[in-house]
Amino acid sequence: MNGRSGGYLVVVGLGPGEALFLTPQAQEALEQAEAIYGYMPYLDRVPVREGQQRFASDNREELARAGAALAHAASGARVAMVSGGDPGVFAMAAAVIEAIDAGPPEWRALDLSIVPGITAMLAVAAKTGAPLGHDFCAISLSDNLKPFELVEKRLRLAAQAGFAMAFYNPVSKARPWQLDRAFEVLREELPGDVPVIFGRAVGRPDERLRVLPLANARGHMADMATCIIVGSVETRTVERPGLSTLVYTPRRAGPR
Amino acid sequence: MNGRSGGYLVVVGLGPGEALFLTPQAQEALEQAEAIYGYMPYLDRVPVREGQQRFASDNREELARAGAALAHAASGARVAMVSGGDPGVFAMAAAVIEAIDAGPPEWRALDLSIVPGITAMLAVAAKTGAPLGHDFCAISLSDNLKPFELVEKRLRLAAQAGFAMAFYNPVSKARPWQLDRAFEVLREELPGDVPVIFGRAVGRPDERLRVLPLANARGHMADMATCIIVGSVETRTVERPGLSTLVYTPRRAGPR
Repeated sequence: MNGRSGGYLVVVGLGPGEALFLTPQAQEALEQAEAIYGYMPYLDRVPVREGQQRFASDNREELARAGAALAHAASGARVAMVSGGDPGVFAMAAAVIEAIDAGPPEWRALDLSIVPGITAMLAVAAKTGAPLGHDFCAISLSDNLKPFELVEKRLRLAAQAGFAMAFYNPVSKARPWQLDRAFEVLREELPGDVPVIFGRAVGRPDERLRVLPLANARGHMADMATCIIVGSVETRTVERPGLSTLVYTPRRAGPR
Repeated sequence: MNGRSGGYLVVVGLGPGEALFLTPQAQEALEQAEAIYGYMPYLDRVPVREGQQRFASDNREELARAGAALAHAASGARVAMVSGGDPGVFAMAAAVIEAIDAGPPEWRALDLSIVPGITAMLAVAAKTGAPLGHDFCAISLSDNLKPFELVEKRLRLAAQAGFAMAFYNPVSKARPWQLDRAFEVLREELPGDVPVIFGRAVGRPDERLRVLPLANARGHMADMATCIIVGSVETRTVERPGLSTLVYTPRRAGPR
């Protein structure tokens, strides 16, 4: 981001919570910016710096937020947009590029860069072992932007493929039943003893982890801050006396 | 990692290359260790510290390396195992837990922790836009530990599910034809204009990126240091005069 004469937009991944996940690249991008845009709880994680403008917005205003940041950058400012986790995984990078795709030609000439971050599923996986140690997929359970029939189809095909799965956006006030339905679909495709991990607020002081078999997984066990990992038929658990159970998916798969 | 009286093993994700991706958590884990184990090129990225032992090993010796590090930690030492990218994604975390699962009971009593890192697909995605902006999967193309028929099945199901895909371990000297076969399989399932990204050594000085349609993707365009992203039918490109093409998968999917 150094040496740019004009304005730019950098989309910065903050990682899953505390500063111990913030990369030096992200740190530098935040320090260099004249203006920072973001969903309020993410912006709150960035220390206030003198002379740096801050624009907080609501979670549902992603395209409007992207457009405001792009217009600001196009006016010649050094603008950062903050995103939880990794901006490229169910976060702001796609919204920004959608806005560029649909926006005025000058936005295409903008210096745009994206700073990756630790996405939630990697933090949850690390806390529990290596449940994503072999082939896996990441699915948003939100049906705000796709029909839930498509979610169900993807869940079935992912189970048939033998992927471990990470679920983003598992529930919200407006989507109370979708996660329970997802577990139901998976119970039709997978054995009931497949391990399911609920990782809430991983990397934050109120972090909570829970591992239980698919047969017992229920929607009320998650909230908006939860990332869920469902194992494949290959996923195993290792019990440890006095320590948390490890969950891992071996590197070897298929017929022996 | 502070305040432990006994030995421990911490598996540390270095991210995809240069130090600008190394999280403060990973940095601290490397500083605290008495001994560091790892595949040689990863170990070479860690600055030499006085009094810190270093144990480099070959890429194919993952289980042996895991066992040596576990035995060392069980003897009371503060041991770090380094891994490129994220240790939980086709890397050392699963090998370590496999070794614990098969090893002596005292290894289960060990203080084990895993420090996540930026995995290759996130760095490649960030460099090109947001190709993983919607549902996606990650597949190892190596048939060292699974039959290639299983890889083919997963590719077909992933294409049918509408996932964007990231390929790890796309080729090696011992696996020269697998990537070409993977592209062939995908051309049977997906339109030829789906964007394919070859990201080589992203985050390192010799980084190279290439975007081309699936119809033109060939195995010789990748080597062992390449991570490949194949878009879904929804993935779009944005041409920019004088700048690299952006690739993104919109957040909206399915019938409009």
